[in-house]
Amino acid sequence: MSTIDLNSDLGEGFGRWTLGDDAAMLGIVTSANIACGFHAGDPLVIRETVLGARDAGVYIGAHVGYRDLAGFGRRNMDVSSAELVADVIYQVGALQGIARAAGTTVTYVKPHGALYNTIVHDARQALDVVTAIREIDPTLAVLGLPGSEVLRAADAAGLRSVTEAFADRAYTPEGTLVSRREPGSVLHDAEQVAARMVQLATEGTLTAIDGSTIRVSAESICVHGDSPGATEMAAHVRRALTAASIDIAAFAPRAGETRTS
Amino acid sequence: MSTIDLNSDLGEGFGRWTLGDDAAMLGIVTSANIACGFHAGDPLVIRETVLGARDAGVYIGAHVGYRDLAGFGRRNMDVSSAELVADVIYQVGALQGIARAAGTTVTYVKPHGALYNTIVHDARQALDVVTAIREIDPTLAVLGLPGSEVLRAADAAGLRSVTEAFADRAYTPEGTLVSRREPGSVLHDAEQVAARMVQLATEGTLTAIDGSTIRVSAESICVHGDSPGATEMAAHVRRALTAASIDIAAFAPRAGETRTS
Amino acid sequence: MSTIDLNSDLGEGFGRWTLGDDAAMLGIVTSANIACGFHAGDPLVIRETVLGARDAGVYIGAHVGYRDLAGFGRRNMDVSSAELVADVIYQVGALQGIARAAGTTVTYVKPHGALYNTIVHDARQALDVVTAIREIDPTLAVLGLPGSEVLRAADAAGLRSVTEAFADRAYTPEGTLVSRREPGSVLHDAEQVAARMVQLATEGTLTAIDGSTIRVSAESICVHGDSPGATEMAAHVRRALTAASIDIAAFAPRAGETRTS
Amino acid sequence: MSTIDLNSDLGEGFGRWTLGDDAAMLGIVTSANIACGFHAGDPLVIRETVLGARDAGVYIGAHVGYRDLAGFGRRNMDVSSAELVADVIYQVGALQGIARAAGTTVTYVKPHGALYNTIVHDARQALDVVTAIREIDPTLAVLGLPGSEVLRAADAAGLRSVTEAFADRAYTPEGTLVSRREPGSVLHDAEQVAARMVQLATEGTLTAIDGSTIRVSAESICVHGDSPGATEMAAHVRRALTAASIDIAAFAPRAGETRTS
Repeated sequence: MSTIDLNSDLGEGFGRWTLGDDAAMLGIVTSANIACGFHAGDPLVIRETVLGARDAGVYIGAHVGYRDLAGFGRRNMDVSSAELVADVIYQVGALQGIARAAGTTVTYVKPHGALYNTIVHDARQALDVVTAIREIDPTLAVLGLPGSEVLRAADAAGLRSVTEAFADRAYTPEGTLVSRREPGSVLHDAEQVAARMVQLATEGTLTAIDGSTIRVSAESICVHGDSPGATEMAAHVRRALTAASIDIAAFAPRAGETRTS
Repeated sequence: MSTIDLNSDLGEGFGRWTLGDDAAMLGIVTSANIACGFHAGDPLVIRETVLGARDAGVYIGAHVGYRDLAGFGRRNMDVSSAELVADVIYQVGALQGIARAAGTTVTYVKPHGALYNTIVHDARQALDVVTAIREIDPTLAVLGLPGSEVLRAADAAGLRSVTEAFADRAYTPEGTLVSRREPGSVLHDAEQVAARMVQLATEGTLTAIDGSTIRVSAESICVHGDSPGATEMAAHVRRALTAASIDIAAFAPRAGETRTS
Repeated sequence: MSTIDLNSDLGEGFGRWTLGDDAAMLGIVTSANIACGFHAGDPLVIRETVLGARDAGVYIGAHVGYRDLAGFGRRNMDVSSAELVADVIYQVGALQGIARAAGTTVTYVKPHGALYNTIVHDARQALDVVTAIREIDPTLAVLGLPGSEVLRAADAAGLRSVTEAFADRAYTPEGTLVSRREPGSVLHDAEQVAARMVQLATEGTLTAIDGSTIRVSAESICVHGDSPGATEMAAHVRRALTAASIDIAAFAPRAGETRTS
Repeated sequence: MSTIDLNSDLGEGFGRWTLGDDAAMLGIVTSANIACGFHAGDPLVIRETVLGARDAGVYIGAHVGYRDLAGFGRRNMDVSSAELVADVIYQVGALQGIARAAGTTVTYVKPHGALYNTIVHDARQALDVVTAIREIDPTLAVLGLPGSEVLRAADAAGLRSVTEAFADRAYTPEGTLVSRREPGSVLHDAEQVAARMVQLATEGTLTAIDGSTIRVSAESICVHGDSPGATEMAAHVRRALTAASIDIAAFAPRAGETRTS
């Protein structure tokens, strides 16, 4: 029987502002990418999300981003390597501190937004992120796109790299994501999305936007929860995977490591 | 032979802005209160200060404050307990992460500015700070004013509490600091300041602003370094203490704990 | 026929985060208190709200607050007079600039959150706010609680002061708001709230929490819109006032001044 | 007799942090580029700088930048047009408000740091900046590099464009600045710098880094003041220009406009 992880972005409120239905998503996913304060997430929101993940048995990842609250970390920023390494260590450390205080641990890092997209292809920033992770805790896994520079750098540094696919995104025949600016790039039909994810989990393939079948490697599926419809779609994906006898479980930490919570 | 610690506020730059001569102070003090990003200190400045402290053999404390960059953490803020606990855990965790990445550790917490002053007398916020420290790492010592609510709460929680005196401040006959708004509250004569600190370290007494002699308990002396004159005064205090055969060393971590760096 | 203004807090999103249904509220109120960036409101949100108010014929007020995004301006802050005067001028100027670029104008100032509450009784901060308004534009009206220090200071400075009541809040027999910490302080029944506001607009009285009838002076009624139910209640208040033949219109600018949009 | 303006970046402190010797520079320059809060400058610092410029008879420009305090506005950011237009209007409006409260006016805009460099060649962001200026106040001049996209867009929009040269920078044979990463890009000899600026002001030429003579059009010279040596160099440039009978005066506002202070 095959196994797959479901991950989602959580803890993305800030002060008075909330985003998404974290409580609902914690009942669906097995891994929570928790904001660390730079693109979203004040300490209180982060702490409540960590406590919720702990209680739900959901694994915790550090969702690190550029320092850009106003832009939600979605704007490319030309940060130096020294800045980026320090920024990532700071964010991971802050989340680890909150997890430690809650009697749990952080098991992986997933970069957010513009940083995520940049280190698919930018080897310099990819190496900076990996350097930061290796320095603060080499047992942390790195979650990213198959074939991305950041997973390549993680492998080279001896970190555990984990591949993911996006449930609601269309793929090119080359296996990359269709740009959000293109028509048809985001899928809205929960049935279709769920069927695609079952195919991915059972056969390791997806139907690309041109109708061709492509191979896609993914140990985790990213589902979104920042709208009521998105929560429904996520639940639908989970049900369909379960109905197809696919085991839904967090990806394992690095060999030899055990989660201490 | 008696022993005393010298502590100072470091890492208080932010981005383009620098403050104080951290390199000089790391050659004078034995404990560095390092800003954690809420009142000052971006991750890169913090990281460089941590690396400098590590290389100089100076102990590292988390200088946690209110979230108020524009006010440098010097403005009272009416934060809730849930917010303050989370804010302190976040800041300590971030600094611990940076220290861990540098192969060193944080050994104590010293609240900053308005938070420091508030928890001298505000039992609620004092307890919040202590709760945060106990949750994230009960081996951390707490540095504060003798008789303060925060040290009382630290003792009650089983944390190591450490008392400090301020080298350049006048004291009331009751043993509290003369308010900065009063004339004569801040001392500027390096000779006089050094002589006072020798008296404090050898006899446990200070001359209050009215000329009376008061008992002051202090395991650490706070010296400032954010002006060239201040650096000179700090160096003068150190030389005078050494000349008086007083051992200058960081206060010990909690019994049974050892520093891992 | 009597006339009354309806005001509400708008433009309180920030970047990715939205708050309230501004579009709906612009169809209900006659005055929009628009966030200025310190407690909420990034420039783009502010600009869109200003354009919406302009198109809806709704008057624009500067909703100035403490510099505290994480606390939404709801935490008391001990700011100096020099800081507060500059902070208010900066916020009003920024909103005026956005209004000018949109071919409209700002006609009043309503302090927000903790600042609003503080200057009900704190004469020093009240004077700071009034000083700022007088310096940047003495034709701006000041919206606040009857009997508050800020309206007293506005009157003394020759500014137009405007009183307001809160639609969904209970009042003490002394005519002040029942603290939110007390049971029954916030009213949830739209029928009851609407009836109270009709009584206020027609008779100048309200029923206090102890059942007594009190006189309340109000040229404007504050309605909230940051939840679906709140929008419904606001619409209900408006319909009830209209049904009672009360004219709903923005309060006039200072005598001799005309709105230039 | 020829005339030239001297401009410098001022008001770049933030809260506890100061930068440069603004008082000294206000005695040297004729135009002050004052930070507006996004890359530097809290409202109090801005206000004090505006008051200083007013008292010294120095013209005031809005030094607008990306929203990046931690990076001092020196990191490229991929902002959308809607965001950039709103951000520039907000910053200019805030500074205009502070100037208005001080009984003076803003006469020009000079973009800062990464934004300045980007809109030398990026036509989209250049147009965004010009659109913002045109909407908020079309009498504002735009200060920038000769041949830059932003000055081209300003001209096309009917704004007054003003060219500037950098006193302490080397030029390529093509008339552009030698990158700061190249050796010799920044000049440190005050005598040499002053002689170059006299040549520029009298002959409209400079010696490029390869020894060739190039034509450079400049109505203003940018001098820096964020180090003691820089202040000295700026004073030296001013003395040399005066000795060469060059009139040092702010560039005129747009035809038909007069400064109201």
